[in-house]
Amino acid sequence: MVSEFNCLVAQSGGPTVAINSSLAGVIKAALESDKIGNIYGSINGIIGVLEERFINITESQKDHPDFIHLLKNTPAMYLGSCRYKLDNPKVNTGDYADIFRIFQKYNIKYFFYIGGNDSMDTVDKLSTYAEMMNHSTRIIGIPKTIDNDLDHIDHTPGYGSAAKYIASSVLEIAHDAYIYATSSVTIIEIMGRNAGWLTAASALARNGYSDAPHLIYLPEVPFSTSRFISDVKQGLSKHNNLVIAVSEGIKDDNGTYISAASEKKDQFGHVMLSGTGKYLETLIQNTIGCKVRSVELNVLQRCASHIASKTDLEEAFSLGEYGFNAALEGETAKMASLTRTSTNPYQVSYHMVSIHEVANQEKMIPLSWINDAGNDIKPELVEYITPLIQGEVNTIFENGLPVYLPVNHLTGK
Amino acid sequence: MVSEFNCLVAQSGGPTVAINSSLAGVIKAALESDKIGNIYGSINGIIGVLEERFINITESQKDHPDFIHLLKNTPAMYLGSCRYKLDNPKVNTGDYADIFRIFQKYNIKYFFYIGGNDSMDTVDKLSTYAEMMNHSTRIIGIPKTIDNDLDHIDHTPGYGSAAKYIASSVLEIAHDAYIYATSSVTIIEIMGRNAGWLTAASALARNGYSDAPHLIYLPEVPFSTSRFISDVKQGLSKHNNLVIAVSEGIKDDNGTYISAASEKKDQFGHVMLSGTGKYLETLIQNTIGCKVRSVELNVLQRCASHIASKTDLEEAFSLGEYGFNAALEGETAKMASLTRTSTNPYQVSYHMVSIHEVANQEKMIPLSWINDAGNDIKPELVEYITPLIQGEVNTIFENGLPVYLPVNHLTGK
Repeated sequence: MVSEFNCLVAQSGGPTVAINSSLAGVIKAALESDKIGNIYGSINGIIGVLEERFINITESQKDHPDFIHLLKNTPAMYLGSCRYKLDNPKVNTGDYADIFRIFQKYNIKYFFYIGGNDSMDTVDKLSTYAEMMNHSTRIIGIPKTIDNDLDHIDHTPGYGSAAKYIASSVLEIAHDAYIYATSSVTIIEIMGRNAGWLTAASALARNGYSDAPHLIYLPEVPFSTSRFISDVKQGLSKHNNLVIAVSEGIKDDNGTYISAASEKKDQFGHVMLSGTGKYLETLIQNTIGCKVRSVELNVLQRCASHIASKTDLEEAFSLGEYGFNAALEGETAKMASLTRTSTNPYQVSYHMVSIHEVANQEKMIPLSWINDAGNDIKPELVEYITPLIQGEVNTIFENGLPVYLPVNHLTGK
Repeated sequence: MVSEFNCLVAQSGGPTVAINSSLAGVIKAALESDKIGNIYGSINGIIGVLEERFINITESQKDHPDFIHLLKNTPAMYLGSCRYKLDNPKVNTGDYADIFRIFQKYNIKYFFYIGGNDSMDTVDKLSTYAEMMNHSTRIIGIPKTIDNDLDHIDHTPGYGSAAKYIASSVLEIAHDAYIYATSSVTIIEIMGRNAGWLTAASALARNGYSDAPHLIYLPEVPFSTSRFISDVKQGLSKHNNLVIAVSEGIKDDNGTYISAASEKKDQFGHVMLSGTGKYLETLIQNTIGCKVRSVELNVLQRCASHIASKTDLEEAFSLGEYGFNAALEGETAKMASLTRTSTNPYQVSYHMVSIHEVANQEKMIPLSWINDAGNDIKPELVEYITPLIQGEVNTIFENGLPVYLPVNHLTGK
């Protein structure tokens, strides 16, 4: 007997390597459940819901014998994304009335929204409205963000893979930096507006022959250009080829972004940064005058699926499954979360947390995990990150290139 | 009986993922030969020769049971590099007298120099001097350059791996670009000052669901900003999320680099480019006004060993071995080269070419392999590149990170 209830899943915010693995977890659990009629996917997040741009995943997954496996390993967002801030449901209910009317029209009993901070804000508001209006659709958030800045979760899916990409790339760039006898500085700019988790992951590149990155600058510590120049001079006296990891989001004492010259803002009012590395490159050129270059790791931090962390993809998948099963058991207005129960051996347990507690909070690196000089991290932080990058995925290659799940529904091809 | 003759090997120019594989080929062949006493490696190329900064590889390789395999898969340059232009030996013999005196001191019968265009210039000059002075040291060039711009060789070691990295990254960035319903342009800036081979490799990212890159601009065709804007407008009318691959080295009708605003020059007088992508990003912002971003693939093109092409590493290794054996058989003043004897199935054969013919020539993409509009490549070029990215290397991971051969002799750690 096919159930009369359907579920709807959508993705939102910036891509991660793991967000499709969470989607795969939701879909796999839904396919295996006898409580679900059709699994719908909304294209472009909550916007897709408002515009009724749905695909029937129960049907479309039949076209790919390896659908779940390929989806788990495909970069970016299979269902597309959006950046759309819902109004406060207590002030303007327009969008909400539309959304819940469409939920009713498609008989959506369960709605899963996979995303980061801003997406959890959406889940929070939808939950508030559902509660206000006594709607029975269960609203569940599934976390992801490379930034690792969500609260009430040990770490976020997507972070481990980005950390693995960053540490591997810093190691490879260090090899590239060591080749010249001429003294040089290489600045590696890493994502992270307010939280330095991604930049901190660069420390994992250190090994028996390489101390790179020799200096690490995080947004949690006010950045001083004079201290920076003195750090670099001192670093160059010890290391011929200095490698520096710097977060795009470093700010001065007044909280102004170091790269503030080229400020742009996104739809949520967040300042979009670029050019921190270039700025510091020019600074070193003008003050120290040595050979200097900057490398911006850029979007590959969040989409280089071929070097994903197996641990990360598996946890993301489990959070999707867990969130689905929790919804089936009656949970709503919650986010699937995980707790680290042990670091050595590394173990996690899953549970649900109230979405009202999670939304609109940003988790920074504790200052106790940053050294006093503000130019490196402490071993406790290395110990925290290390288990998250463990394990490799077996990317399938065909004709020399990674094979990912086709996204014709996004490209229109 | 240990031979009385030694060999010396050095690397020069910019790194590639394959240059250590060529070094591994030379070393493996030398270790297996009974004609060689010690294998010396010069640290930092020809500069290291002048300064007698040698390591004894015959000895040091004994410390690593997996030396050859690890070296083959290690990024950048195990022996370090230099950028040093020797004077014309017919005008100033100072450096040459020193170099050949040191060759004699260390009983160097065979000298192998692994590098690109500028390094082959060095090999050419050393060969000319050896001939002038009747020195018996045999001088052999082993080719490498990600740029693929060496003449008298079907393609250069290092190119295939860079091409594989570029095509894979463009595919992953395309997935990242397709997620938003909002119309957008993503510009991917790829290395290549004068030759467009690397940028052309982006075309291999195209598949059944993605036409990205939708536009490709190469240095071989004069770049017109007005044609570019019209291409982008037309592209946006067909594709919601337009992905553009552009070479850093595109120039206008007068041969001036598009990014010429920030010109710097290296020791060979080459203009060092940066900012082509940023320039075009600003141009689109100011003229079309849509969402636009630029991504510079940067140095990872030449050092991301974890996604190297197996074909590339194996050919690089074979060229090292072949060059060594040719030297043993009496060849000098030559470069090891390869010819494609068949594309389907892909097959190559090895031979030696006169270094005088190779040096100081630059191989561009034939215009017949570029479309008439100058914004894409033709299928012939895709067919040329495709075999070069085939096959994956089994990168060893430990504790979540790729394992490479330690370079303590470069880091001093």
